Amino acid sequence: MNSWGDKFRVTIWGESHGQQVGVSIDGVRAGIALKEEDFLADLGRRKAGGAGTTTRTESDAPHIVSGVYEGHTTGAPLTIVFLNENTRSGDYRNLVVHPRPSHADLVAQKKWNGQNDPRGGGHFSGRLTLGLVAAGVVAKKILGEDVRFATRITEIGGEKDSTKFDQIIEQARMEQDSVGGVVECRVDGIQAGLGEPFFDSAESLMAHLLFSVPAVKGVEFGNGFEAARLRGSQNNDPIIDSEGHTSTNNAGGIVGGITNGNEIVVRAAIKPTASISREQNTYNFESGKVEPLIIKGRHDVCITLRAAVVVEAAVAIALADLKLRA
Amino acid sequence: MNSWGDKFRVTIWGESHGQQVGVSIDGVRAGIALKEEDFLADLGRRKAGGAGTTTRTESDAPHIVSGVYEGHTTGAPLTIVFLNENTRSGDYRNLVVHPRPSHADLVAQKKWNGQNDPRGGGHFSGRLTLGLVAAGVVAKKILGEDVRFATRITEIGGEKDSTKFDQIIEQARMEQDSVGGVVECRVDGIQAGLGEPFFDSAESLMAHLLFSVPAVKGVEFGNGFEAARLRGSQNNDPIIDSEGHTSTNNAGGIVGGITNGNEIVVRAAIKPTASISREQNTYNFESGKVEPLIIKGRHDVCITLRAAVVVEAAVAIALADLKLRA
Amino acid sequence: MNSWGDKFRVTIWGESHGQQVGVSIDGVRAGIALKEEDFLADLGRRKAGGAGTTTRTESDAPHIVSGVYEGHTTGAPLTIVFLNENTRSGDYRNLVVHPRPSHADLVAQKKWNGQNDPRGGGHFSGRLTLGLVAAGVVAKKILGEDVRFATRITEIGGEKDSTKFDQIIEQARMEQDSVGGVVECRVDGIQAGLGEPFFDSAESLMAHLLFSVPAVKGVEFGNGFEAARLRGSQNNDPIIDSEGHTSTNNAGGIVGGITNGNEIVVRAAIKPTASISREQNTYNFESGKVEPLIIKGRHDVCITLRAAVVVEAAVAIALADLKLRA
Amino acid sequence: MNSWGDKFRVTIWGESHGQQVGVSIDGVRAGIALKEEDFLADLGRRKAGGAGTTTRTESDAPHIVSGVYEGHTTGAPLTIVFLNENTRSGDYRNLVVHPRPSHADLVAQKKWNGQNDPRGGGHFSGRLTLGLVAAGVVAKKILGEDVRFATRITEIGGEKDSTKFDQIIEQARMEQDSVGGVVECRVDGIQAGLGEPFFDSAESLMAHLLFSVPAVKGVEFGNGFEAARLRGSQNNDPIIDSEGHTSTNNAGGIVGGITNGNEIVVRAAIKPTASISREQNTYNFESGKVEPLIIKGRHDVCITLRAAVVVEAAVAIALADLKLRA
Repeated sequence: MNSWGDKFRVTIWGESHGQQVGVSIDGVRAGIALKEEDFLADLGRRKAGGAGTTTRTESDAPHIVSGVYEGHTTGAPLTIVFLNENTRSGDYRNLVVHPRPSHADLVAQKKWNGQNDPRGGGHFSGRLTLGLVAAGVVAKKILGEDVRFATRITEIGGEKDSTKFDQIIEQARMEQDSVGGVVECRVDGIQAGLGEPFFDSAESLMAHLLFSVPAVKGVEFGNGFEAARLRGSQNNDPIIDSEGHTSTNNAGGIVGGITNGNEIVVRAAIKPTASISREQNTYNFESGKVEPLIIKGRHDVCITLRAAVVVEAAVAIALADLKLRA
Repeated sequence: MNSWGDKFRVTIWGESHGQQVGVSIDGVRAGIALKEEDFLADLGRRKAGGAGTTTRTESDAPHIVSGVYEGHTTGAPLTIVFLNENTRSGDYRNLVVHPRPSHADLVAQKKWNGQNDPRGGGHFSGRLTLGLVAAGVVAKKILGEDVRFATRITEIGGEKDSTKFDQIIEQARMEQDSVGGVVECRVDGIQAGLGEPFFDSAESLMAHLLFSVPAVKGVEFGNGFEAARLRGSQNNDPIIDSEGHTSTNNAGGIVGGITNGNEIVVRAAIKPTASISREQNTYNFESGKVEPLIIKGRHDVCITLRAAVVVEAAVAIALADLKLRA
Repeated sequence: MNSWGDKFRVTIWGESHGQQVGVSIDGVRAGIALKEEDFLADLGRRKAGGAGTTTRTESDAPHIVSGVYEGHTTGAPLTIVFLNENTRSGDYRNLVVHPRPSHADLVAQKKWNGQNDPRGGGHFSGRLTLGLVAAGVVAKKILGEDVRFATRITEIGGEKDSTKFDQIIEQARMEQDSVGGVVECRVDGIQAGLGEPFFDSAESLMAHLLFSVPAVKGVEFGNGFEAARLRGSQNNDPIIDSEGHTSTNNAGGIVGGITNGNEIVVRAAIKPTASISREQNTYNFESGKVEPLIIKGRHDVCITLRAAVVVEAAVAIALADLKLRA
Repeated sequence: MNSWGDKFRVTIWGESHGQQVGVSIDGVRAGIALKEEDFLADLGRRKAGGAGTTTRTESDAPHIVSGVYEGHTTGAPLTIVFLNENTRSGDYRNLVVHPRPSHADLVAQKKWNGQNDPRGGGHFSGRLTLGLVAAGVVAKKILGEDVRFATRITEIGGEKDSTKFDQIIEQARMEQDSVGGVVECRVDGIQAGLGEPFFDSAESLMAHLLFSVPAVKGVEFGNGFEAARLRGSQNNDPIIDSEGHTSTNNAGGIVGGITNGNEIVVRAAIKPTASISREQNTYNFESGKVEPLIIKGRHDVCITLRAAVVVEAAVAIALADLKLRA
């Protein structure tokens, strides 16, 4: 479905090379000061342009087309659109007959009987995340200033020392390859008690949104997979005060699916960009044979760089929805 | 919320020590042969009794109370209840004033203003997963016989050699401790094209349900977190035939959020049981001090053993919902 | 779907002659005093037994099976079941081969490929409304004591003078026939501002629920269909004070889909009971001909009498959901 | 909420005097031929311009901004926007301090704490129904050519003779007043078996949508309120063939909440336009007194004329959603 959320409901649409991508948000309370400039910082974090990112650049200018009047939200649906400007016309037939490995090219054709828009990945393009980032900005306003996000890349290509990230990415580029990474988002100031048993645990909502972000293949909270390797005596978080603070935070701020007032810690594994410049042998539907494919065009060597703010947005949206439900 | 799913909708209720736990399933097509015995195999896999599990045993007998007539489903809501029989009466006040670390005791109080049912974890008890397992059995009937599940425990306490699992668990029991583990579920025979962009990716739906299962702290698909450490050239799955089969399956059968016809591979990290027999120092709300806590009663040293079938059920429910949406 | 509501979510199940009908309610806040006796008054209003009602009587005893602990709601799903006791065994094959006019017999077969439970209407039985009435009782507790319901029958068989209702019903019974009626529900004390544009107007939610009640064929608010016959100058409600009270209430307390703080006025048209004792000519699927049908068994001459409290319950549930969303 | 539907999901946004109103539709299958011209006929029926309608005219040109590629739908969200061009700037402060009777002016303020967009009714404007009409066009394509709609106005100002409608409207205009009416929509060719018990009866879904249309105050199916005045022997529809056709169609094609294969008959009561030119006495929040109000600007004397196609669109959307669920 193209909408998500119960009380903070986000609806998105668009294609990579269509006229626009957009987002409409329902459930934004009236009276929040909001202007287009407010989106620029986070949109800038998502933007291509640095090392390791594609050379396709868009203005990514947000246009508020409904829900704001005289500089504040009105309570009615808040809609923001982004025009697609820097699209290259061209022949996309190759994506159809010789689909890229680990891209949505083939599944999109199968799902939509070959009627999908193939240009630049169509609806499966990472460009759709512009709407998520915009919604994330609004979500953070709903969460309020006492809620602070700290998002960082903890791994690239298996390396945890951030000073080596540039080098790893450059090496991959030189080898016409790509690298994956891990994004960690920490959120301080979330009240205890968020999460709706049985099915809408705080983890369920965050994971649901995170796994809708292209390239995310794993999600964990607190110790996550490492918890599976620990003893209970190591992984348990003793409570130390009447507010429920714990001496450790192995749970990542969530117990029984409910926030416990400690810092939220969530990590998302981002796979290496599927588009790589080097030759790949993959099935050609026209010839009926496995044949070499060279993917032309503009790629991100390390999409993790741009995904960090998208992960943060997804976490913010889920937490805003949880807060408004409480 | 206590219901989940769009076309295969599961609603659950109950408490650990209340009268019953139950599940009602909407969207089950008419005419599926179904009797109470059909649930016993999976319920048996969830059941306590083996090494590493609690000594509280229940008959766990499923009672179909609606939706079946003359041995087949009718199309109307299918409801199955389980009576709680082997509940021990006793004083649960200690869970309120001296809540167990990493248990839902405290968050339940905070969320529900101290009005929650504290007995045995109340609504947060793992006993609620009986309904999930029952729904999973029905989900597998909807998926059909061509869809085959293979679920296994791939790690316990960090050890991947399954011949050593018993020993690790026994060691933990001797030390009055508990251990976590990893459950892997593989599903063969899932058609290509399942998943509903943008927000309801196949991964999103499975992860949503999996993170509603108590003790799950991480979920990954295919290479998962390992993908974040690979190059694109290593992680990409070349297509080898017109059906979309790939020579490798690093994606775990899902690309762009859509199933691609290859085997689904999903893993869930299960934290070590929070209830351990050894003494823990944690906050006492009556005394206002951190004090030693001894948790009495019956615990699972390794809940992963019983969680495996619950993970399988969650995956099956999500896939059934996806199939019915397609 | 068998569940309805966003914040006050009601799920129902059961068949007329199955083991039980039940309801599970999610979104009930913790700490509301609730015992089984609280349901008896409204259940009694729904009960058969008076003139114009069926002679099938059930104890209709409500059993709270989850969500209440020590006399108050816990915040977890609240589940109430009713056992089916006074079911007559018998041959229901006639309902299949010679379906009753204006009953669900035939559509149930078509929808569910002949696998439906035909006994007593199965899932389409009015007995399912037990769960609605129970949920209505809880909804009224959520709305609070300042919200007062006044529900009455304004018409039976076209007659608006209530002193003649008994006579009209008796006349219909003598003629082996049935009569319809109109139920009006007025609700005082509802705050202004309830209703969620665009699609979830206050009227939309009430009408949605009301049209799920068997036999309801029309719903109107305030002047309703009469408004269509008026001039604007006659139908408009001038505002007379700062709280938004109006000198007239032609709108029935709802403007622009939003409650305006005046009394809610809603009416539901209840068709005459489809089951009548007199002979009807209708298609026999076995013979392939239109043939006389005599419906045996116990019927309500005027189901409107029992439907009044169901209408009230539906209105209460919708208003509770709207209140909790606000 | 600003979205509606389960399988055919419509999301709308916009304000009367904002930049645009729009609609995004999820669940449109891939491969339907669709171009902007396809919307013009129905948009034309909604358009102002004839006798009895406002003199504000807009081009109402539909712009497809996502979901269509090379002349057919792609399976991705289909989005259509309408630019607001003919908006008159001006002072809307009067709507705030001296709100119009039976308009949303006051409830919008109360709901959104005075932060609502007051210009031309803001989000409560009938202009939002542009999106509904566009979605209705798509819904009719999904229903297919065998499904035929016949929509007509059966009453204006209480008069059922359509040859007198013009005269009644002209009379009202002369008297600076407005008139209401009744719209009837008949739909032929709907298959039996649509409707999802218990809560999503065919009537519930149509009524839900119809009551989200501004000015609708009553909805009935088949005999509707007249059924409440009949005997069962008069209102029952005898079945006459194996397909379930009935000799009469008092049920309006729906029994037990499920379509029975006969013609769908639904009527909506449209209240007289609240905006009238004549003076009205109503509360002034600035002076704190009831004072005469003259509403300036452009009004529809009989909004029923333009509402007919909106009613048809709402019915079509509900039926398309029901069809896709089946």
